[in-house]
Amino acid sequence: MKYLHTMVRVTDLEASLRFYRDLLGLKETRRIENEKGRFTLVFLAPEGQEDAPVELTYNWDPEVYTGGRNFGHLAYEVDDIYAFCDKLQKAGVTINRPPRDGHMAFIRSPDNISVEILQKDGSLPPQEPWASMPNTGVW
Amino acid sequence: MKYLHTMVRVTDLEASLRFYRDLLGLKETRRIENEKGRFTLVFLAPEGQEDAPVELTYNWDPEVYTGGRNFGHLAYEVDDIYAFCDKLQKAGVTINRPPRDGHMAFIRSPDNISVEILQKDGSLPPQEPWASMPNTGVW
Repeated sequence: MKYLHTMVRVTDLEASLRFYRDLLGLKETRRIENEKGRFTLVFLAPEGQEDAPVELTYNWDPEVYTGGRNFGHLAYEVDDIYAFCDKLQKAGVTINRPPRDGHMAFIRSPDNISVEILQKDGSLPPQEPWASMPNTGVW
Repeated sequence: MKYLHTMVRVTDLEASLRFYRDLLGLKETRRIENEKGRFTLVFLAPEGQEDAPVELTYNWDPEVYTGGRNFGHLAYEVDDIYAFCDKLQKAGVTINRPPRDGHMAFIRSPDNISVEILQKDGSLPPQEPWASMPNTGVW
């Protein structure tokens, strides 16, 4: 179990970089431009704390974020995403986005905070029942 | 500039401890019970990452969290809270909760994400114009 990041959605990447980078003083540690998904991710962390970044998600197609959707999620890495999701599911937690790809899952806290679960070192081979499990709700 | 925590508000502390502690496997690193303020704060972090906790805020008097208020804030520690807030203010950022006490301030990101700024090593002596500056809006 390793903390990875806190993600927030932003509607104006330049304005957000001015705020988080230029004003707060965080350093950009990683950037992903995904043309197919039409989004940009920018990770920003304090000097010396590269393992505690805030992740800015900028979707190229504008969306108005209401109802708290500008807050994204907390993200944690686990040793075995299948064993982890199995434990949660048996405890009554809905796996909103099952780890079909052996890589990523989403759940929600009792107060509806979105939590991303990522497989350590990438992904495990696809495995049932996860591989064919549909999504439930949103996250 | 040091990342301190991500805060989320919870309506049922026991249900949240079952989720974050028992199911996700985070360890409780610190707890503050404030009778006067009628709230409990519980910090939970992965083993070995005590500097990257999620902070659960449990207000004893029930409140329905809508509009994303269940997400609280990102928190960072700074070397000089007055110099930091001065820089932000001069750049056009509203200091929603000025550091009247030399200890704590709140601002918001361009997308309205609440950011807490805390003075390193506690607090500085009260100082104008901050000491008599009123709050602006909510955070």
